[in-house]
Amino acid sequence: MQLPTCFLIKGLSEKQLDHYSGISREVQIKKGAWVYQEGDAAEQIFMLREGVVEFMTMVDGNIEIPVNILREPGSCFGTSALISPYLYSISARCVEDSMLLAVNRSKLEVLMQEDSELGYIIMKNLSEHLLEHLKETRKELKLHFKNLLKFMQS
Amino acid sequence: MQLPTCFLIKGLSEKQLDHYSGISREVQIKKGAWVYQEGDAAEQIFMLREGVVEFMTMVDGNIEIPVNILREPGSCFGTSALISPYLYSISARCVEDSMLLAVNRSKLEVLMQEDSELGYIIMKNLSEHLLEHLKETRKELKLHFKNLLKFMQS
Repeated sequence: MQLPTCFLIKGLSEKQLDHYSGISREVQIKKGAWVYQEGDAAEQIFMLREGVVEFMTMVDGNIEIPVNILREPGSCFGTSALISPYLYSISARCVEDSMLLAVNRSKLEVLMQEDSELGYIIMKNLSEHLLEHLKETRKELKLHFKNLLKFMQS
Repeated sequence: MQLPTCFLIKGLSEKQLDHYSGISREVQIKKGAWVYQEGDAAEQIFMLREGVVEFMTMVDGNIEIPVNILREPGSCFGTSALISPYLYSISARCVEDSMLLAVNRSKLEVLMQEDSELGYIIMKNLSEHLLEHLKETRKELKLHFKNLLKFMQS
């Protein structure tokens, strides 16, 4: 199976990509359906093949705050499945009929333990991605703080 | 050199800990002095041996927002040195005279490439740590959002 480009598998060798591909399977999800919800056990990592997926978090249990939207084939999500405590931290829903490539967490863990170079590369890519997200979130928080300051000074 | 317990090296074997220890060196930093500042090239990862280190980010170039404070020996920081683009994303300053263990980024990279199992474990630990931080930061952002909603509804 030909894998789309994805940050998580960047830098893997042809052979390692074949192994990753070998544990992937295609999943069809209908427009409007959840891929997963915040707090669900994170058992799968996903790669977008076709379609659009939006991400959101809930405030007070009923107000949805949009977090992100992915349209680019090869976009990767659900990476909480790679990190203890293995719970999705936001919700994902398909905005259009979508085709995803899903990889089972336990299968990928076996692969990473058998080939620790593959594990090292994937975890390095994941760390980069998480730090990027952390920086963006901190930037947003700063913006709120600045607005609060302006408000208090006015 | 006996290493203090630190999230980054959790799960390494005795031999791997020896290798990590072999590239560590002690650094003394005076009360009030910076360990690094936001935006500096991240060339070293630090472990707190003795003392207290506080972390902050700047808003509008002159207002310091506190981010965190570390007092526990073994606390690890400066992990941006492990992730491209290798820039510290917040500032760190010693609140008391402190003793740190510093590891040079390039030396650790060589070690992780030579022993990819060690690299896999360290990067897995780092991912866990970053996801934890990301969740905390998102929680804070939610709190701001909730306050904003309350304010708009009042």
